[in-house]
Amino acid sequence: MPELRQDPIIDRWVIIATQRGRRPSDFTPEPHPAPVGFSPFAPGNESTTPPELFQIGRDENAPADTPGWRVRVVPNKFPALSSEGDLDSQAHGLFDRMNGVGAHEVVIEHPQAAWDIADASPGEMSEILAAYIARNHALETDPRYRYILTFRNYGTAAGASINHPHSQIIALPVVPKQVRDQLEVAREYFKRKRRSIFGDLVRQNLQEGTRIVEDNAHFVVLCPYASRFPFEMSIYPKRQQDDFTQMNAEEIAALSEVLPRTLGRIKRALGNPAYNMMIQTSPITTPRSDDPTHWTTIAQDYCWHIDILPRLTQVAGFEWGTGFYINPVSPESATEFLREA
Amino acid sequence: MPELRQDPIIDRWVIIATQRGRRPSDFTPEPHPAPVGFSPFAPGNESTTPPELFQIGRDENAPADTPGWRVRVVPNKFPALSSEGDLDSQAHGLFDRMNGVGAHEVVIEHPQAAWDIADASPGEMSEILAAYIARNHALETDPRYRYILTFRNYGTAAGASINHPHSQIIALPVVPKQVRDQLEVAREYFKRKRRSIFGDLVRQNLQEGTRIVEDNAHFVVLCPYASRFPFEMSIYPKRQQDDFTQMNAEEIAALSEVLPRTLGRIKRALGNPAYNMMIQTSPITTPRSDDPTHWTTIAQDYCWHIDILPRLTQVAGFEWGTGFYINPVSPESATEFLREA
Repeated sequence: MPELRQDPIIDRWVIIATQRGRRPSDFTPEPHPAPVGFSPFAPGNESTTPPELFQIGRDENAPADTPGWRVRVVPNKFPALSSEGDLDSQAHGLFDRMNGVGAHEVVIEHPQAAWDIADASPGEMSEILAAYIARNHALETDPRYRYILTFRNYGTAAGASINHPHSQIIALPVVPKQVRDQLEVAREYFKRKRRSIFGDLVRQNLQEGTRIVEDNAHFVVLCPYASRFPFEMSIYPKRQQDDFTQMNAEEIAALSEVLPRTLGRIKRALGNPAYNMMIQTSPITTPRSDDPTHWTTIAQDYCWHIDILPRLTQVAGFEWGTGFYINPVSPESATEFLREA
Repeated sequence: MPELRQDPIIDRWVIIATQRGRRPSDFTPEPHPAPVGFSPFAPGNESTTPPELFQIGRDENAPADTPGWRVRVVPNKFPALSSEGDLDSQAHGLFDRMNGVGAHEVVIEHPQAAWDIADASPGEMSEILAAYIARNHALETDPRYRYILTFRNYGTAAGASINHPHSQIIALPVVPKQVRDQLEVAREYFKRKRRSIFGDLVRQNLQEGTRIVEDNAHFVVLCPYASRFPFEMSIYPKRQQDDFTQMNAEEIAALSEVLPRTLGRIKRALGNPAYNMMIQTSPITTPRSDDPTHWTTIAQDYCWHIDILPRLTQVAGFEWGTGFYINPVSPESATEFLREA
């Protein structure tokens, strides 16, 4: 019998349809193209990207946009949004538009195209996290922006067009409805219970135990109860925090071990599939909370987390038409499989 | 400059980012695998499917599940939901579940695997629509169901696993939030204006003209103002109707010409891409409107329509993380391109 499960935060249902007969070993992702030929992100090719915004590793006296960096952040050469101009919101009849103002940056994670984040040393990963945090802090000061997403597309099926290892950061002039819906539920829950729904979720998952992939002093890695996709995972901090850039040094060190290990699990268990990774964090709050277009958290109600979606199944007409998802692998089976990887 | 556009019904933003430099001719979908070998849906193989629920074409006296049909509807052999059992809704702490009760049917559209709906004659298409309508009417009488989606996945990238031409019908025991959100907006708009927001949208599109692919006596084919995907199209009836099964004979005849022609446009213009097609119609309303889990329309507020999403781009981390979509082709350019096809 298939099971309908409702996401505990938002009103989204998934169908856990294990009787459709797909076992974890049935998923055979397309092989990744090996990085070959010219990489615009490789050392020596710095002039092929827009001028850098941030780097780690280069000699103090060396000029910008030259080799010597270990992590480098540049504006996206083909940005989805433009950092120039103002918002200029307009309506024409029923149609609302505004200028596509925003930031779109690329975090080049390593000088070598063949390097993989799943094999990152804690030192390498902590420098990538440092770049994420530095750029989030810089973008937060722009009064036009309301929300920042840090994310990583790995593999063609996940939308990656350049296979030199990189993440992306996009700053938006509005808080997405999808984020607001979660914040509103979290706010209401906190008002009633004086606890974060995210904290309660992690606690119930830990008590049940069947969806916990890894549990250590600072982080919990779990397969969500209402996973939309096979082998979907989330990483939650154990200390309630609404903003991932507030991690302390110990937490950054811990995540620098947990994140590559978690990405390594799906690589080993599932044959190196494409995936999307998103850091879900609170909207930009300070110091403009008197502006009604800002959606703020009260810090204790929301909890940042990292979502990892392996791309093993197609999103099809049923999903587009209803917002329901059909997941042929239960998160409990996925957990067992990923724990052993 | 990219443009942010808000969907006029739901609070979803898309980024129209034409400066990313993709022209219509840049999209090269993967070639479709030709239907070869054994088709479980071919005449003579009727015993490989569960017993049929509906058919058109066979001699009155011929036994069921034998050749002679032109359109045949069967239960999905690997259903996402089970038509047996009751709902048995339960909560365990924060986690809600119910039995995966529902219907999952396959509409086999033609005896020949190599036939394509884009080449359907009006007669062939009207028989497929007749099968959709008959099965929707049959499923509506089951008191466990609240919403029915009729949809079509074409091509591997759109989630089709069998390439014998077919559509699917899924009946759900809950009205999806995505549908309710639209119905609520439509209801509020109708209360204020005594007009359907869908009717007003079609009218504004017709006045502006730049997104109209085809306009005839009974239907309008348009590229939505806030298209999520390149070459996305919607088909709206000109007569306000909340439920597509209420089409009259003249409208069915008109749609039988418009729908294959519209699917033919994307086939010719874009090199036979994969696509998803969904008939978005009102939830099941009669005769149980005193049940609070039913979401009803008042007929004049909602308008059914068909959405067609060519699958030319990948959904990536930014889309999953925010619910925003980046569309590299403006619906106005897409319209020009599709009009000529």
